[in-house]
Amino acid sequence: MKVLILVENDFEDLELFYPLYRLREEGYGVDVASSSLDVRVGKKGYQIKPDLSYEDVRVEEYAALVIPGGKAPERIRINEKAVEIVRRFLDLGEPVAAICHGPQLLISAGAVKGRRMTSWIGIRDDLIAAGAEYVDAEVVVDGNIITSRMPDDLPAFCRELIKMLKRY
Amino acid sequence: MKVLILVENDFEDLELFYPLYRLREEGYGVDVASSSLDVRVGKKGYQIKPDLSYEDVRVEEYAALVIPGGKAPERIRINEKAVEIVRRFLDLGEPVAAICHGPQLLISAGAVKGRRMTSWIGIRDDLIAAGAEYVDAEVVVDGNIITSRMPDDLPAFCRELIKMLKRY
Repeated sequence: MKVLILVENDFEDLELFYPLYRLREEGYGVDVASSSLDVRVGKKGYQIKPDLSYEDVRVEEYAALVIPGGKAPERIRINEKAVEIVRRFLDLGEPVAAICHGPQLLISAGAVKGRRMTSWIGIRDDLIAAGAEYVDAEVVVDGNIITSRMPDDLPAFCRELIKMLKRY
Repeated sequence: MKVLILVENDFEDLELFYPLYRLREEGYGVDVASSSLDVRVGKKGYQIKPDLSYEDVRVEEYAALVIPGGKAPERIRINEKAVEIVRRFLDLGEPVAAICHGPQLLISAGAVKGRRMTSWIGIRDDLIAAGAEYVDAEVVVDGNIITSRMPDDLPAFCRELIKMLKRY
């Protein structure tokens, strides 16, 4: 079973690598998708080579989607193919886990209205303006959407993600 | 149940934070010990505030010891109190998990002779010179000693650590 992670430059390094390693530890395959196959560099300087580009993603092959934070989500959301990937995971009812600035993608996908969610506090007002019921908690689960606020929430974030994956 | 992590400046960021978060995710308390309580900064810039100094560590309170890599182990090993902590974990037969340059502490503690171990390749010859049976693998378990080579080995490293913790 495979999980997809979306990435662009200036991703929050721990928010990419903790879920990536954690899912591998649990035995899941993990693919990293980006706008091209060029190496991406995180805010702190860690590097990752994407496995495939957005246009080559076949959503049906994946059991869940993870969206790390940092400045990457602002770069990802301006790519319509990437937003379409997020929408298809949501339409299929598969787990979508977004942390920190990751929920910006959920705003762009039009998936926020009426949902209980959290995020990095700096984008809290954007979520509220888009109709979310904002909660300040280390992790918030609403249907198939899992959200967290920051790197220190990663243990709770991945605990809920893996719990949800095992239910499917 | 609590786990102890040793840290100084220039730690390998993922090798500190992945085990720290991973153990928290599993429900363990985690304390970080250093030579003082000043904030420590990793090679990539992540920061951690130590919970206690080496001299205040009571080894009996902990179920395992984790030694992340980077340049920190060279700073830790010159502190006799820190080396004594490593020795006491080993004497008690409790899990000691060292990754990357972390096994430098095991050399300083005199714990390497005749043991199957791995490490970052740059210190391989030091382990061999100290009498280790060196193995190039993502994780090597010999008795209560768990060793790995680099950040990408973290899933295997933590899988073995948590497996060993659950046996105790």
